[in-house]
Amino acid sequence: MQIDPPYLLFLGDVADALAAKTAQGVVDWRPEFCLGQMRLAGCRADTGLPDMSPEEAAAKGAKSFVIGAVNAGGVLPDHWVASIVQAIDAGLDIVSGLHLRLAEHPTIGPAAEAAGRRLHDLRRSTENFATGTGEKRKGRRLLTVGTDCSVGKKYTALVLDRQMRARGLDADFRATGQTGVLIAGRGVAIDAVIADFISGAAEWLSPAAAPRHWDVIEGQGSLFHPSFAGVSLGLLHGSQPDAFVVCHEPTRKTMRGVRTPIPAIAEIIEATIAAGRLTNPAIRCVGIAINTEALDVAAARTLLDETGAVYNLPAVDPMRFGVEAIVDRIVAEFPA
Amino acid sequence: MQIDPPYLLFLGDVADALAAKTAQGVVDWRPEFCLGQMRLAGCRADTGLPDMSPEEAAAKGAKSFVIGAVNAGGVLPDHWVASIVQAIDAGLDIVSGLHLRLAEHPTIGPAAEAAGRRLHDLRRSTENFATGTGEKRKGRRLLTVGTDCSVGKKYTALVLDRQMRARGLDADFRATGQTGVLIAGRGVAIDAVIADFISGAAEWLSPAAAPRHWDVIEGQGSLFHPSFAGVSLGLLHGSQPDAFVVCHEPTRKTMRGVRTPIPAIAEIIEATIAAGRLTNPAIRCVGIAINTEALDVAAARTLLDETGAVYNLPAVDPMRFGVEAIVDRIVAEFPA
Repeated sequence: MQIDPPYLLFLGDVADALAAKTAQGVVDWRPEFCLGQMRLAGCRADTGLPDMSPEEAAAKGAKSFVIGAVNAGGVLPDHWVASIVQAIDAGLDIVSGLHLRLAEHPTIGPAAEAAGRRLHDLRRSTENFATGTGEKRKGRRLLTVGTDCSVGKKYTALVLDRQMRARGLDADFRATGQTGVLIAGRGVAIDAVIADFISGAAEWLSPAAAPRHWDVIEGQGSLFHPSFAGVSLGLLHGSQPDAFVVCHEPTRKTMRGVRTPIPAIAEIIEATIAAGRLTNPAIRCVGIAINTEALDVAAARTLLDETGAVYNLPAVDPMRFGVEAIVDRIVAEFPA
Repeated sequence: MQIDPPYLLFLGDVADALAAKTAQGVVDWRPEFCLGQMRLAGCRADTGLPDMSPEEAAAKGAKSFVIGAVNAGGVLPDHWVASIVQAIDAGLDIVSGLHLRLAEHPTIGPAAEAAGRRLHDLRRSTENFATGTGEKRKGRRLLTVGTDCSVGKKYTALVLDRQMRARGLDADFRATGQTGVLIAGRGVAIDAVIADFISGAAEWLSPAAAPRHWDVIEGQGSLFHPSFAGVSLGLLHGSQPDAFVVCHEPTRKTMRGVRTPIPAIAEIIEATIAAGRLTNPAIRCVGIAINTEALDVAAARTLLDETGAVYNLPAVDPMRFGVEAIVDRIVAEFPA
């Protein structure tokens, strides 16, 4: 999926900033992609970008109208349709992370067809993937894996990508979820792929590259999550990472949405190496990223120091203290 | 989904018998459904049924044209389309296990609509699955797992189901692939489900049952196959088996379709228990099913005896010598 920037971010009339977190994520990570925002009367979210109409955005060079907010239930409110059609008529492609298939909407589908605009459903993959081959590809790959869903795998990958570039490494962030795809402008929502093609889609996502190039791949789910482990395993096999970083949230007791206990970091490291060896025998863990938001600074430092000592790995909170120690480890273990 | 027998089985021009395993499976398990086969020039598969055209088959009473062969990835070769249209024009419904939605094919869809014939896509479930919960369900479950694809997981499950019923156990075969669905008349092609719902679909397939009822679940792929391991893991988690049987083909050196070496039986047992514990801590291996077709009887017996001794498990060739020893083990380990 290839999404053309720059974007006009549509926030609708959502009731709070949280409902526009997709738009905010894109603004935070790719401000250069974001030309403006469009809000309806009563909107309580604000990304800080200039408000503009689709026509104004198109005149300034915008290519895509991104539905960057979601109302309760994740359905498309009827009163948003006119804005979407307005954007189509202004010459913009439409990008949506809603469950609805845009082309099947009785007004939006025909409007886009008449105007020759593209409709991108981030939750629907249109790419025809091949099944995975397991063949080793040139280039280096890092995958973020998790003890659970929603523990910071995307954020950690983005910070690592940025910091590796800052250190002069040749790196690309590879998106596997809808927000990540908007940030990267390319990628695949791996959990929306047909099951037969999970690892094939992951192989497609990080193609052969220069020997010292790094793909920093956004992980999904957890090998120990009873709903999504199949996605995590196929992504691991297709990504064939040389290096992985374990992401963890220390206060959670059970996995997101289910009653299964959170595994230990050691279990994730062991399971990731055991499974990852299949497509990359040299797979190794290069760090641990812990979301310490619930702890005060002193407690967070102590937890990170202790965890690092137990595993003999750099343990960091990417959001709070950065990922420098993990990049140090990567540079040391994978010399130029 | 109601598929009308009898069938004309279409084998195309596939390169080997394994590629026509759907057709062969239906012939073996539902011979009363199978009227004939249709093969194109160069076909290397042969079910032993009389060759006939769609017109001949229709004249003999055939109702459905079953695409009983598949190439890697489940893609429809262009040169098969004419045969399918010929069958439609002869008055047959079309049954397909390909990933393609037949109705969306630019030639097949209109041809079927014009002729008033039905198009059955075995890999397209109309069921809306939920994501898996990992919650334990009542009833007992057995899953066949493999060191590779195409090593006899479906056959082993079918023979076990038949033999368990013969021994008075309350059992149901649960189909997870297109051939199994054709044989059982119900099931889900688990590799065609959206990746997010693999374990959820497996949970749907074997619902809560009476405490001593057995679901005998057809396995898919292999935890060590780089193309399909995600499917195998999601199926394992959703099936939450109490017991599993490892299926193996002793002469194969690399996994089907890829260059990855075949794992040892010990590795599969270990990996299946390690992963399966997540949704059923009591998971255990109750037997090994080896396809000894390539060996003479003496060599086959020796291999089975030696393998059984090494693992302290019943080791059988289901097609050659039956599965009695595994059913004995099941009866002993799971008392009524």
